[in-house]
Amino acid sequence: MKPLFAGVVVTAAVVCVVAGLSSASQTVANKDTAGSGVASPIYGVTLPEGYRTWPLVAPAEEGKPLDELRAVLGNPIAMAAYAKGQLPFPDGAVLVKLAWKRTPSGEFEPASVPGAATTVQVMVKDARKFADSGGWGFGRFVQGRPADAAEHRTCFACHQVRVVGHDYVFTRYAR
Amino acid sequence: MKPLFAGVVVTAAVVCVVAGLSSASQTVANKDTAGSGVASPIYGVTLPEGYRTWPLVAPAEEGKPLDELRAVLGNPIAMAAYAKGQLPFPDGAVLVKLAWKRTPSGEFEPASVPGAATTVQVMVKDARKFADSGGWGFGRFVQGRPADAAEHRTCFACHQVRVVGHDYVFTRYAR
Repeated sequence: MKPLFAGVVVTAAVVCVVAGLSSASQTVANKDTAGSGVASPIYGVTLPEGYRTWPLVAPAEEGKPLDELRAVLGNPIAMAAYAKGQLPFPDGAVLVKLAWKRTPSGEFEPASVPGAATTVQVMVKDARKFADSGGWGFGRFVQGRPADAAEHRTCFACHQVRVVGHDYVFTRYAR
Repeated sequence: MKPLFAGVVVTAAVVCVVAGLSSASQTVANKDTAGSGVASPIYGVTLPEGYRTWPLVAPAEEGKPLDELRAVLGNPIAMAAYAKGQLPFPDGAVLVKLAWKRTPSGEFEPASVPGAATTVQVMVKDARKFADSGGWGFGRFVQGRPADAAEHRTCFACHQVRVVGHDYVFTRYAR
């Protein structure tokens, strides 16, 4: 394990230099993605490293009873697919949906802002590995821990019925 | 070494794309930032190149009468400041707020999603240049064109009264 760990450190260092990102930016990412590393049941999907710095696909709001603000972020493969209007999404595309309780702003009355984080939900495209679920693997995480198998069984069941025409992905790129 | 090298290359490539260096991502960004290049009145602020690929600070919702979904993105200097809790924000920090009409999802009843884009609003930190407005220059753009001077006079007036304790910035980083 030691060589692997060293490799990760070196890789991260190289990435910072290549990207020209400050160590402080990396700190944000690391805090937010420091999950348990535990994979979701059924699909074996984990929280992807550094997702919190990925570009925004679109925000959303979910009404009652959840009453949440949400934002979907995409990895480079997913963002390139959105840019090209490429459907189905290619293998390697990853989407992450962050959700927070919708909370009234105490500083600007008409506004609502993110309150407590609720879930982080992940979709990973691998047409062969996840052939039984439209090519997508799902992960639903609460405080970095995956939800149970019963909850994961609901993911594709809902996407399959509602957004078959958009490769089972609800979120469109917000222009 | 081979696995390590491969890891470096792959990860570095991913980060380069995240940083806005991929041609595909740039295509998305360019479409969205292809403004007139015209600067805002009073402040001379323009739409920053490539902002649409910047990381998310936080989403928000604004109630009636505007009824909008919003997302604030930050450049690397701004994101580093958020990570460190650095106040005031350092010179060079840029925040961009995108706004869209809040539109019911036709695919998932409880959800609202971005409809037509309304405004893109920019804050640029330069303590000396913008000393009369808390160190911030403001730009408010509709379809890539800056709003008039009268609208720009309202920017700092509102921020000054409401968020003096957070360097005149409403948006907090959504963890």
